[in-house]
Amino acid sequence: MVNLFLVRHAESIWNVESRYQGILDPDLSEKGHTQAKITGNYFNSFFSKKLYKKPSFVYSSPLTRTRKTALEIAKALDIPLIQDRRLIEIDHGDWSGKLLCDIEKKYKEDFKTWLEKPDEIYFPNGESLKEVRERVKDFINFLLDNHYNESIVAVSHSVPIRVFYIEVLNIELSKFWKFGCDNASFSVLSLDKKQSVIRGLNYTYHLGEYYVEAHRAI
Amino acid sequence: MVNLFLVRHAESIWNVESRYQGILDPDLSEKGHTQAKITGNYFNSFFSKKLYKKPSFVYSSPLTRTRKTALEIAKALDIPLIQDRRLIEIDHGDWSGKLLCDIEKKYKEDFKTWLEKPDEIYFPNGESLKEVRERVKDFINFLLDNHYNESIVAVSHSVPIRVFYIEVLNIELSKFWKFGCDNASFSVLSLDKKQSVIRGLNYTYHLGEYYVEAHRAI
Repeated sequence: MVNLFLVRHAESIWNVESRYQGILDPDLSEKGHTQAKITGNYFNSFFSKKLYKKPSFVYSSPLTRTRKTALEIAKALDIPLIQDRRLIEIDHGDWSGKLLCDIEKKYKEDFKTWLEKPDEIYFPNGESLKEVRERVKDFINFLLDNHYNESIVAVSHSVPIRVFYIEVLNIELSKFWKFGCDNASFSVLSLDKKQSVIRGLNYTYHLGEYYVEAHRAI
Repeated sequence: MVNLFLVRHAESIWNVESRYQGILDPDLSEKGHTQAKITGNYFNSFFSKKLYKKPSFVYSSPLTRTRKTALEIAKALDIPLIQDRRLIEIDHGDWSGKLLCDIEKKYKEDFKTWLEKPDEIYFPNGESLKEVRERVKDFINFLLDNHYNESIVAVSHSVPIRVFYIEVLNIELSKFWKFGCDNASFSVLSLDKKQSVIRGLNYTYHLGEYYVEAHRAI
C-alpha cells in the first residue's frame, strides 16, 4: 500500500482575483505563504505521532504555487522534493489568465459544459479531463511500482486532485464537481492494486484562521 | 442547501472487542466518552467561527453509542436532539453480538461477499445495503424538505455513513469499502436537489491523542 498525502497548493494571487490559472504561473499570495508554512509545520507534528510512516518524498507539480507549498513541507520533514509534470494543473488553454467573470461571458456555452458536463469539456488550445485522468492514473501506477509500503506527499492543483478521487473510486469524470478542494487542504488516499481507499478528504483544520473557502476560479 | 455535519459515534466497548453490533446496543467505552466530549467542544468552537450557520438540530440514531455522542454535541451547541431511526446501523442479523474472528469462520462465504461484493450482501435475519440506501435517501429528502438553508448535525454509524457518501455521489453500492470511517469522525456534506457535494470526509484532527484507527468490526 502507498499512503498518499495529497495537498492542494496554498492560495495564489490569482485565486484571490478569481483569475483562471491553468499552467500559467502566478506566485502565492501573502496568506498563501503563511498557509504553506502552517501546512509544513502541521505535517511535521502529524508524522511525529507515528500513525503513518514518515513520507520519503514530496512530489510537486512544477508550477510556483505548488513548488513553494511543497518546499515548506519538504523543509519541515527534511525530505527531498521532486518535480513531476503529471501533477500539473489542467491546461485551461484560451481561458488561462482570464477573469472568471469574463470567461462566463465570452465562453458561455463552454462554461456551461464545464459546470454541467465536465467530462465533455475540451478547453480550446488546452486539455480535457480525460487527458488529466491519464496522467493521474500513470502517477498512481508509478507510486505503486516505486514507493510500495511508503508514505508520499504530492502537491498538486484542484483539477488533478478531484481526478485522483475519481480514479481511486473508479467512477466517471462526470462526478468531478462532487468534491470540495480548498487551498492548502490535504487528503489521505491509501493506494493499492486491489482496493484503494479515500481515508480522508479536504482536511483544512490545520489552517485555523488562515483557512479560506475555495475561490471560484481554480 | 443543507450543510450536513455527519458524525460517527464515538468508540463503543464492542468496537474495542471487534464484536459486530448492528442494532444491538453496547455503551461507549471510556475513551469513547472522552471522544464524544471532545467532539462536542470542538463543534462549539468550530461554529463560533461562523464559517457555517450554527446547526439547528442534532439528529441521532436511537442506539446508546450514537445518542451519547449526539448528546454531548447537543449540550455543547445548546440545540435540541431528535432521535431518528433512519440513521440506525444496518441490522447485521445473525452476525450481531458475534466476534469478527468467529464470523470469519462460521459465515465464510457471506463474509467474502461482505468484503468483496458488499452490494450483494443480505445479512441472514437482517438487512441489505440496498435497504440502508433507501432510508438514507429518505432522510436526505427529509432534510431538504424540512431544513433548507440550515446546518444540521446527524450522528450515525459506519454503514449508513458510507451509504450517505454513495448517495451524494450517486454511485453504486459496490463502492462501499472505498471510504474511511473512524470513531467520532465527522464529514461535511452540502446537500442540494441539483448538486450535492462532499466538502470534507472523515475529519478526525479534533480528537488529537484520542484518535483510534477504525476497529475492524463495525
